[in-house]
Amino acid sequence: MLRTETVRNILSWYEGETPGLKANLSRLLMHGRLAGTGRLVILPVDQGFEHGPARSFAPNPVAYDPHYLYELAIESGVSGYAAPLGLLEQGADTFAGEVPLILKLNSGNSLVSGNDQALTGTVEDAMRLGCVGIGFTIYPGAEYSYEMIEELRELSHKAKSCGLISVVWSYPRGGKVTKEGETGLDIIAYAAHMAALLGATIIKVKLPSGHIDLDAAKSTYEKYPIDLNDAAARVKHIMQASFNGKRIVVFSGGAAKNTSELLEEVRAIRDGGGNGSIIGRNSFQRSKEEALKLLSDVMDVYA
Amino acid sequence: MLRTETVRNILSWYEGETPGLKANLSRLLMHGRLAGTGRLVILPVDQGFEHGPARSFAPNPVAYDPHYLYELAIESGVSGYAAPLGLLEQGADTFAGEVPLILKLNSGNSLVSGNDQALTGTVEDAMRLGCVGIGFTIYPGAEYSYEMIEELRELSHKAKSCGLISVVWSYPRGGKVTKEGETGLDIIAYAAHMAALLGATIIKVKLPSGHIDLDAAKSTYEKYPIDLNDAAARVKHIMQASFNGKRIVVFSGGAAKNTSELLEEVRAIRDGGGNGSIIGRNSFQRSKEEALKLLSDVMDVYA
Amino acid sequence: MLRTETVRNILSWYEGETPGLKANLSRLLMHGRLAGTGRLVILPVDQGFEHGPARSFAPNPVAYDPHYLYELAIESGVSGYAAPLGLLEQGADTFAGEVPLILKLNSGNSLVSGNDQALTGTVEDAMRLGCVGIGFTIYPGAEYSYEMIEELRELSHKAKSCGLISVVWSYPRGGKVTKEGETGLDIIAYAAHMAALLGATIIKVKLPSGHIDLDAAKSTYEKYPIDLNDAAARVKHIMQASFNGKRIVVFSGGAAKNTSELLEEVRAIRDGGGNGSIIGRNSFQRSKEEALKLLSDVMDVYA
Amino acid sequence: MLRTETVRNILSWYEGETPGLKANLSRLLMHGRLAGTGRLVILPVDQGFEHGPARSFAPNPVAYDPHYLYELAIESGVSGYAAPLGLLEQGADTFAGEVPLILKLNSGNSLVSGNDQALTGTVEDAMRLGCVGIGFTIYPGAEYSYEMIEELRELSHKAKSCGLISVVWSYPRGGKVTKEGETGLDIIAYAAHMAALLGATIIKVKLPSGHIDLDAAKSTYEKYPIDLNDAAARVKHIMQASFNGKRIVVFSGGAAKNTSELLEEVRAIRDGGGNGSIIGRNSFQRSKEEALKLLSDVMDVYA
Amino acid sequence: MLRTETVRNILSWYEGETPGLKANLSRLLMHGRLAGTGRLVILPVDQGFEHGPARSFAPNPVAYDPHYLYELAIESGVSGYAAPLGLLEQGADTFAGEVPLILKLNSGNSLVSGNDQALTGTVEDAMRLGCVGIGFTIYPGAEYSYEMIEELRELSHKAKSCGLISVVWSYPRGGKVTKEGETGLDIIAYAAHMAALLGATIIKVKLPSGHIDLDAAKSTYEKYPIDLNDAAARVKHIMQASFNGKRIVVFSGGAAKNTSELLEEVRAIRDGGGNGSIIGRNSFQRSKEEALKLLSDVMDVYA
Repeated sequence: MLRTETVRNILSWYEGETPGLKANLSRLLMHGRLAGTGRLVILPVDQGFEHGPARSFAPNPVAYDPHYLYELAIESGVSGYAAPLGLLEQGADTFAGEVPLILKLNSGNSLVSGNDQALTGTVEDAMRLGCVGIGFTIYPGAEYSYEMIEELRELSHKAKSCGLISVVWSYPRGGKVTKEGETGLDIIAYAAHMAALLGATIIKVKLPSGHIDLDAAKSTYEKYPIDLNDAAARVKHIMQASFNGKRIVVFSGGAAKNTSELLEEVRAIRDGGGNGSIIGRNSFQRSKEEALKLLSDVMDVYA
Repeated sequence: MLRTETVRNILSWYEGETPGLKANLSRLLMHGRLAGTGRLVILPVDQGFEHGPARSFAPNPVAYDPHYLYELAIESGVSGYAAPLGLLEQGADTFAGEVPLILKLNSGNSLVSGNDQALTGTVEDAMRLGCVGIGFTIYPGAEYSYEMIEELRELSHKAKSCGLISVVWSYPRGGKVTKEGETGLDIIAYAAHMAALLGATIIKVKLPSGHIDLDAAKSTYEKYPIDLNDAAARVKHIMQASFNGKRIVVFSGGAAKNTSELLEEVRAIRDGGGNGSIIGRNSFQRSKEEALKLLSDVMDVYA
Repeated sequence: MLRTETVRNILSWYEGETPGLKANLSRLLMHGRLAGTGRLVILPVDQGFEHGPARSFAPNPVAYDPHYLYELAIESGVSGYAAPLGLLEQGADTFAGEVPLILKLNSGNSLVSGNDQALTGTVEDAMRLGCVGIGFTIYPGAEYSYEMIEELRELSHKAKSCGLISVVWSYPRGGKVTKEGETGLDIIAYAAHMAALLGATIIKVKLPSGHIDLDAAKSTYEKYPIDLNDAAARVKHIMQASFNGKRIVVFSGGAAKNTSELLEEVRAIRDGGGNGSIIGRNSFQRSKEEALKLLSDVMDVYA
Repeated sequence: MLRTETVRNILSWYEGETPGLKANLSRLLMHGRLAGTGRLVILPVDQGFEHGPARSFAPNPVAYDPHYLYELAIESGVSGYAAPLGLLEQGADTFAGEVPLILKLNSGNSLVSGNDQALTGTVEDAMRLGCVGIGFTIYPGAEYSYEMIEELRELSHKAKSCGLISVVWSYPRGGKVTKEGETGLDIIAYAAHMAALLGATIIKVKLPSGHIDLDAAKSTYEKYPIDLNDAAARVKHIMQASFNGKRIVVFSGGAAKNTSELLEEVRAIRDGGGNGSIIGRNSFQRSKEEALKLLSDVMDVYA
Repeated sequence: MLRTETVRNILSWYEGETPGLKANLSRLLMHGRLAGTGRLVILPVDQGFEHGPARSFAPNPVAYDPHYLYELAIESGVSGYAAPLGLLEQGADTFAGEVPLILKLNSGNSLVSGNDQALTGTVEDAMRLGCVGIGFTIYPGAEYSYEMIEELRELSHKAKSCGLISVVWSYPRGGKVTKEGETGLDIIAYAAHMAALLGATIIKVKLPSGHIDLDAAKSTYEKYPIDLNDAAARVKHIMQASFNGKRIVVFSGGAAKNTSELLEEVRAIRDGGGNGSIIGRNSFQRSKEEALKLLSDVMDVYA
């Protein structure tokens, strides 16, 4: 299958990037069920690091085996699979070339307090494992947010020089951001904009609520109103904040919820012009059959 | 258009710098409406990083698209365009060679407290994007001011070795500086002087008020008085503090105000011997038509 | 003067190159009398190295002074000036930013037999002097031609990483190439094609004669004939060999001849779709007045 | 003028240093009015950084122009001129080779609280500007004193490998040092000794008072008494602490005072065996005529 | 003694070089008997390497001791002393700072056939020994001439980055150059021009004869005649070939001859605008008394 006009158009936004980076981005956009649509669904598995193995895999114990996660990613036809070093290593050879991989280069864990993550992989690892790109989390607002941004700067500079795309998990927390504000519309828009300014190829943010968090921003949102009750309108604002839609943005729903709520969110992302979803716990914590069904339903919405 | 005697004279101040750096400085001074006059107006767009996207672009939503900002810089005939990585990347290829670019290498954001910025770009990025120079903010007085100065030292050393100019945003805050003092005459003079001592090619400071902030400085300003009510006299003092006028200094007015006030400030800068203005929100937050009119009026004053 | 559609179109051929390289190419194409036309005339002064100072400059002794050569390049309005290290150094500061410079990185001389050149400058020198690019000669066919090609590979790789364009002097000689063949149509087409394959931004070849040199090529040229007596047709063939005209090719005429012959050649280059001329001895060996007249006449043809 | 026996003897103390370092030290000792005497007077201009431009230069506004400072250093015949990066850059080419230069590599400012300085220059800068050495301030006792010492260690190691001398401003403050103690005899002796131990080529300390600051030191000074009221005896003790006089020590007097007091101090330095003075504000804050007179008077004492 | 207008003017030719390089050049031009005149006499001692110790030092056996050569350089008041590594090392500490040193970085010897030299020192050695510059021989025309030129390119690039000047011994031999041609006017002019193009700070060539060697050059010298019998006219042509006199050129007379012949040559160099002489065997092979007399006489001519 050749590149579609839709994908060709998306690649044109990444002007000045090397053909190597564009080729890797194209691999992601031309893989799986949504190939060529400009939409994408990514399977991320960083919950083991974030919340521990039992909280992550006990509901569906076959998922303790990393090969299961590769199989889920491949059989479901999602666009790509993102995980920390060990998970990708265990399967990278067996499934080499079967699904676009994204190596998550930093990870936090629940044993430590505070908002930070440790570097847990390298750009060289991403090359060795045949990944199309790297993943990196920043916590704008947090105590170490500037250090995280500077790490991202170094790693994405290096990744680009190797033709790898960068996927930035931009999750504000701490600092002036309230707990509710972590998904506030103004905060998510800011998070997406910062990721774009930092040169992210793909931006990953949480689906925004209708809450406006920063006092300094309230008058702006009053003067230039957005329908805060309309999820699609909120997504549209996030896309606007992402270079007027000229960056790929994928959304995560956060904590597990029921299927119909999740599909409603997906329709809002689609209608607001978002590029897709990152679906982790909602897939690998279900049985394989259920997971394939859910992912299929999600991709039906985007297709 | 060849170099003018005015520009030739300015370049002679930068003795000991490489011809490569002078060629890039010359490109800036010979571009646009003010080419050859020794004055310059620069369009900076770092507000998205500093204040978030909505507060920056909602008043004129076309500005969410980075191409719009390039077009504004090119059509208005300003001397150069300064922005963080992502904004310059999205347009650098389309508009290659059409306007001198300055890559801002550090950026702060409103989600985090305190006076600091994160490194968000590299000298290699500036080369890759065809920039004439780098931009860097220091906050003299702030908790991390010495670290910021040391980062500047490293980056400007590297930039010089590649023939790139450095534009230093010198914005005292924190430490012994009061809120009112941030634009105090003594503080701004000090800020400009420090930037000059640090080897800045171009110094960017706020337009000073008549306030004297440091107790230690008050007796000096009483003994050697300056007409504190005369904006041009204040600008003249800033130029004096900038190697007796042998460094290029551009001024920012800060928060948006009405047009006639802004033009009055510009006339004071001109009359005091300042080299020009950095005009951000006052241009990209207006409609294109109004922005082009304002920039044209500002450049009329300097021409 | 902003970029023209013609120049914008030319830059689009160099896909995958960095915005930095395109900005430097744009600087060359937007400078001087021919700015924006997609045509260019370059003043090269490597004859001092190649043939010694007296044979180069005795006819017009003011040209012994490197400043004269800068002045000639600037006053005539040619697109750029190409020379070895010492010549560019003596004037790079005085005339910083006034004319696009190309640093010739290798040079041969007439005291030594054989077809080779020595490296005489570095990419760092090109950066230090504010050049838009580097120049490099290869002698396809010569004993050391593969070494020269490998040097070019290294230097142009490094130059590209700094955003510098590469101008390749592709001059077949030695090996299977006869003396007459050095300007043979098949040989020049081959030379241009090799330079394009080596990643040259701008290709410099000699204006081809109607001679076909390689026995192996004769049947092809008989089967697919070109009007060997038509200079424009020959130029057209060279452009065809240069990625069907998607690389910039400039032509040198070699030994000095009379003005009307030279202008006739220039018209053939223009009519055949060539991008311009490199005019050295024919300009700097005449009095300044005559040289300016000649260059003006040449540029009139291209304008 | 060739090297004198006095200078030859001084150089012999620096055994194990490279001839390159000795040549640079010799350049300093053989320059100006005091050439060959083994005494030296250095013009330092770091007050602009330390106290701001107005407090430094308003009393003699021509000193805002860095060229004036070069001219003062050259015309007065002092041994050398020490300043931060920007001040040396603005004049290094015009006055190349006319006066030995010392690049101050760290600087503090009055906007920030606490005793620390930022790195503001590099050893490469010192080489590029043709300096004979680097200058560096340490604050023994201060919170960051160990970091400052470690920075000195790295920079002086690097400087030595390039043949550059190091001049160490050793200014105890903070920690166990009282305000009065900053010029206490025991503290200054300690400061000089530490600088010697750190490998300083030239030690710069404040002229000591008769105060003994550290309780732990008092019994020693009682048991082995020094005439605390005799300034020359105090200087002699500092020289003793500086490898028994085998390191060059220069003294600063601090805040401006009247001329006869200053000359009295200079005579004490001379009589105590000190090597000379660092005279900043007392020279550049006077009119040029007065400054030349004062420096001449000071050098008369040492000659 | 401060810099003279003559020296200031010479330094201005080296535009774009660092203040560091100019400071070192100034040190050479401001040292010794000819300080400030723009003329210089250099004592070179590379004959031990070239011809063996006995042929070099037997006529004046005290010269076997390297300290003698330093003393000769210092007492005579010549501008500088140039020698290979070992000779400079043995004395560099004893005489540190007493005479500007030039470390010859390559050397040939008489035991091997062919025209080549070996690298025998490094830029780091030059720094360690406190030299103002490096010396390097090229043999344009010789079998390995291009390799020598490439070594020079690397070493002079490195030297410049440390502020060291480069002195290039440009001695054509081999290739198309006949034995008589080695001092032919056209060949020496070519040699000087090549050294200038290679970025030499100071060019060292042999005093040219009236012979024209290259067939290709004869018609030029007939058409643009020079008085071949007039030594000053020949020197003038060499200066013309050296960027119209904007590079420093010093001449060697080669094999020893009688004093009056040598002084006649020196007068020709002076009258033709040459910058001075390199006098080796004619000085160190005589008794010290005679050598000092000769060098004094030579400097009298230039003074």
